[in-house]
Amino acid sequence: MNFHQKLQKNFQSKSTLLCVGLDPELEKLPSFLEKKPESIIIFCKEIIDSTAEFCIGFKPNIAFFERFGSIGLKQWELVIEHIKKNYPDHIIVADAKRGDLANTSKEYAHYFFKSLEVDSLTVSPYMGKDSLIPYLETGKQIFLLCLTSNPSSSDFQRIISSSDSKTLYELVATLSLNLHSEFKDQVGLVVGATHPKELGSLRKEFPELPFLIPGYGAQGGNLQETLINSGTNSLINSSRSILYASSEKDFAIQARSQAKTISEEMKAILQKLS
Amino acid sequence: MNFHQKLQKNFQSKSTLLCVGLDPELEKLPSFLEKKPESIIIFCKEIIDSTAEFCIGFKPNIAFFERFGSIGLKQWELVIEHIKKNYPDHIIVADAKRGDLANTSKEYAHYFFKSLEVDSLTVSPYMGKDSLIPYLETGKQIFLLCLTSNPSSSDFQRIISSSDSKTLYELVATLSLNLHSEFKDQVGLVVGATHPKELGSLRKEFPELPFLIPGYGAQGGNLQETLINSGTNSLINSSRSILYASSEKDFAIQARSQAKTISEEMKAILQKLS
Repeated sequence: MNFHQKLQKNFQSKSTLLCVGLDPELEKLPSFLEKKPESIIIFCKEIIDSTAEFCIGFKPNIAFFERFGSIGLKQWELVIEHIKKNYPDHIIVADAKRGDLANTSKEYAHYFFKSLEVDSLTVSPYMGKDSLIPYLETGKQIFLLCLTSNPSSSDFQRIISSSDSKTLYELVATLSLNLHSEFKDQVGLVVGATHPKELGSLRKEFPELPFLIPGYGAQGGNLQETLINSGTNSLINSSRSILYASSEKDFAIQARSQAKTISEEMKAILQKLS
Repeated sequence: MNFHQKLQKNFQSKSTLLCVGLDPELEKLPSFLEKKPESIIIFCKEIIDSTAEFCIGFKPNIAFFERFGSIGLKQWELVIEHIKKNYPDHIIVADAKRGDLANTSKEYAHYFFKSLEVDSLTVSPYMGKDSLIPYLETGKQIFLLCLTSNPSSSDFQRIISSSDSKTLYELVATLSLNLHSEFKDQVGLVVGATHPKELGSLRKEFPELPFLIPGYGAQGGNLQETLINSGTNSLINSSRSILYASSEKDFAIQARSQAKTISEEMKAILQKLS
């Protein structure tokens, strides 16, 4: 089953698009957990187990593990393994935003897709098409950074090209569509919920491309507006509002409750919209 | 001593700008070494020890280590440790091309600058200024991807902005100069030797910014032309032509010989130019 089919199947069975982002910041872990890398796996497993019922995917961000080097990367691998073993139907998006020369991207592609066997990887488009091909040659799916959720996304992503009056992020979307045709449903876009108007325009122009949408919740995006604009060929990510719903011993219960609330709200909005 | 001072001091004492790129591809390692991650550290240590005399820095690329996950990252950490312990005056550029939201970049910055204590890190500019600040707040130096050496660099980096007729890579250079002023000599640019004309123009416009220049050697850049265009506020990287000078037991001797040849050629050209 490819990414596209897995996303569709998940949505059909659960009627939600919620993806839980795993960004375990050591400083924000529940106060009773020791401030050491090994606490990350305890925290993540609890979050995963308590929210899996209400989400269709997980998006662990490798930076929060790589912070602790090889020891942290071991925790990262245990997190991926835990999801694959216990929730094989859930989508795993490795959030790593990698991007390098083709011969180097091949090494990253090997790790994420052949060793870890995640479903998808976030990739930076700055170096252009030849830097992206090695990921696609594995048969797996990538989400290209398109219009990111942070305020400085406008520094470069909104530059308007003088030759065709398109913004950089629109040109990234156009390349993505070409690659999506060439490599059968293997390319999607990262579009921040903090840009509702642009999200809607991109969805109209690129209905085929799955969107990974961060920026809902802690970063300020509104859920109903996001869903109206994103459509159902999307994963809506929420990290901080679920992970840090409580900093006490009830953190997993509160995370579950928060994931349930978001998921049910999504279901209700999507039913109203359909 | 900051990056700028370290580069100057090295150049004054050695009259070369050679940086040896450490891209250990398992498939290309000398045939007598076992094809396993632990061979990487054996290979890299030999390369480092045999070339240190003729170069002023090392640029290990983390992708070739991350390919093997946590086990590979342990090798990576041993490589960095080996350089720091035995060649403390050499510059270490961690080639990782990271880039993420500010709260996430902070985690990468912690690892590379606070834990590993490398001198510099390559970073992708796609997400804009706020994604770069956490690296600079550590007091360390970053090289921003500007005009990369690969053919597809033209896909996005050469887009001309309709508002000021500048290319994307020139706008990245302009932001870098602003950050360089704001954060006292902490920002440089990655510019491929495969674009000699643009390298020369960027050097004229941005004399203050150190350049990290890949693409000389295996990727086709010409040394004399590169040096004329780059000036001495630069690190000229060579990876494959040194690392894989021989695939037999004499690989370190041949790497040393190749590094010596390049270094002496640089010295001769720079003397002629000065």
